[in-house]
Amino acid sequence: MSLRVAIVGATGAVGEELLRVMEQRRFPVDELLPMASPRSAGRFVEFRGRRVAVTAIDVEKLKTCDVAFLSAGASVSRQLVPQLRGSRVRVYDNTSAYRLDPDVPLVVPEVNARELTDRHHVAAVGNCTGILLLLALAPLERAFGLARVVVSTYQAVSGAGRRALERLKDELRRELDGAPGDVPVPSAAAPAPLAFNCIPAIGDIDPGDDVAARSTGEEKKVVAEVRRVLARPDLPIVATCVRVPVLRAHSESVYVELRDAGATLATVRAALAAAPGVELRDELARGVMPTPRQAAGIDGIHVGRLRPGDQPGSFAFFLAGDQLRKGAALTAVQLAELQLPAIRAASGVP
Amino acid sequence: MSLRVAIVGATGAVGEELLRVMEQRRFPVDELLPMASPRSAGRFVEFRGRRVAVTAIDVEKLKTCDVAFLSAGASVSRQLVPQLRGSRVRVYDNTSAYRLDPDVPLVVPEVNARELTDRHHVAAVGNCTGILLLLALAPLERAFGLARVVVSTYQAVSGAGRRALERLKDELRRELDGAPGDVPVPSAAAPAPLAFNCIPAIGDIDPGDDVAARSTGEEKKVVAEVRRVLARPDLPIVATCVRVPVLRAHSESVYVELRDAGATLATVRAALAAAPGVELRDELARGVMPTPRQAAGIDGIHVGRLRPGDQPGSFAFFLAGDQLRKGAALTAVQLAELQLPAIRAASGVP
Repeated sequence: MSLRVAIVGATGAVGEELLRVMEQRRFPVDELLPMASPRSAGRFVEFRGRRVAVTAIDVEKLKTCDVAFLSAGASVSRQLVPQLRGSRVRVYDNTSAYRLDPDVPLVVPEVNARELTDRHHVAAVGNCTGILLLLALAPLERAFGLARVVVSTYQAVSGAGRRALERLKDELRRELDGAPGDVPVPSAAAPAPLAFNCIPAIGDIDPGDDVAARSTGEEKKVVAEVRRVLARPDLPIVATCVRVPVLRAHSESVYVELRDAGATLATVRAALAAAPGVELRDELARGVMPTPRQAAGIDGIHVGRLRPGDQPGSFAFFLAGDQLRKGAALTAVQLAELQLPAIRAASGVP
Repeated sequence: MSLRVAIVGATGAVGEELLRVMEQRRFPVDELLPMASPRSAGRFVEFRGRRVAVTAIDVEKLKTCDVAFLSAGASVSRQLVPQLRGSRVRVYDNTSAYRLDPDVPLVVPEVNARELTDRHHVAAVGNCTGILLLLALAPLERAFGLARVVVSTYQAVSGAGRRALERLKDELRRELDGAPGDVPVPSAAAPAPLAFNCIPAIGDIDPGDDVAARSTGEEKKVVAEVRRVLARPDLPIVATCVRVPVLRAHSESVYVELRDAGATLATVRAALAAAPGVELRDELARGVMPTPRQAAGIDGIHVGRLRPGDQPGSFAFFLAGDQLRKGAALTAVQLAELQLPAIRAASGVP
């Protein structure tokens, strides 16, 4: 009569953040089952002051859990989810595996919580960049209608994983010491040096030679997921996703054209200020603006630099948010919280 | 019977780069007069293997020069230029002082060289971000007509000067060592920590509370100068300028809508490939793309990530270029080279 909660990918950056978020929000975990790839099994994670051993991924054990957070990559999710169907466990998938599956709701709690019902046993947590963007776009869509979105991102290296983060620090130490050292080998996580660089290539690259191959995996995710969550399959949106040498928190430069050409700076500002998850940081003359350093660890997004664009109904702004927290772990836990009454009822926990 | 060339602001980042560019292009300097603020007078600069003493700024000496490059700030230029009028010296001003003065041509050699004639004794060198952007926009304007431009920048810390660069390195060393150290004091050059951060505020901030105060000095320069150089005073353009922890070379994420809705990926690509100063780096699947690290020290811009936008005639791309070199020093020297026959004639040098 107690909640069993599994984390698949418990030793990764999102897994670690899931543990912290569950602690902070007092998510009712009675038994924690941290799982990971065989490489990481045998390690320990900290939860509520205790060390808990990480095991290999065990499908049979997962079936006996009430909640499973998946953040071990899309291929792992694609393997696990079909095997878990029909069991009691509720799955919150932090990978891209099911985000565009019409049978799986893609939910940002502040935007489309009602799409997640008690009958869903699998829910998808969106791409980090898309979630942060949606917190700002949704209130504008609701109040004025979006006619066009152009977004350029400034994405932190922690979004590429722990090893990329260590590599950035190694590169910086080498360069600051003036020692040439080994030249880093390009990898999928970092196709160019990370230190003192901007890399306009995040995610998988389609090796084809057609037009589709000119957008990156990250850009395709942002576009598709924003359209899906807003239920605007034809929304004109262009995304350019760029890795920058920031440790944590993504930033985004956003340009929007609104359907309601009568929208004013004041009404747009009011719509953003009232939106859940949005905190305005918009006093440029006083140095108050969104920056990734200040956004690290926050639960929503900071929005600022709001100003009119080049025609009636167009506006530009800048946002920053913690991609590991709100962009992944926190949103997953929020989804589980939305289903908590149903989960408790099923498990017999009062 | 020899060319006397002065550099005002010789010890600054742009002054240093002017010296290197003149060496590399064998600009015909017979006598070099490096000048700077009283604080820097007495120091030495290196030119063609010799040490040359830096003097305080001397208007009378400047009047006897053939060429003077000004890069000691807009207020110094505003003081000097009126005093130099009527003298033989040709002034190339690397500050914002005269960029919007209708009597002073604002020239990017690859774009509007013919606006600089022999009768001009003062020419303005544009803002670094604007120059790099114009190298890509001009061929699109010429071939298809621009209907709208949305640009978000990724600007190197060297653009904020040498002290900002040292501060970035200090902050990084402190953070990598884990030592908290002194908290950096916000300044105009860096209103927030530079290390691992993105700062969407470059240039002066109008302290007023109106709409104009919501754009930064840098953003206003980019918009006004692009419009002036393209002779499109009403061009719809929105710029968001952001400082990133890169040492050298600016990057820009650009979205354009073209008047000619029949423009295709192939024709846009061809127009950019043929443009002076543009080198395509556009093979994403092979990791070939513009990055600031690779653009440091180049003479033009790298353009890549070219792809269709969200409607016919719209396109997105990414560019990188060296803001100290092409964005300032090289362009200034190129302007002097354009006037070199007239300069030689006036000085009697064959």
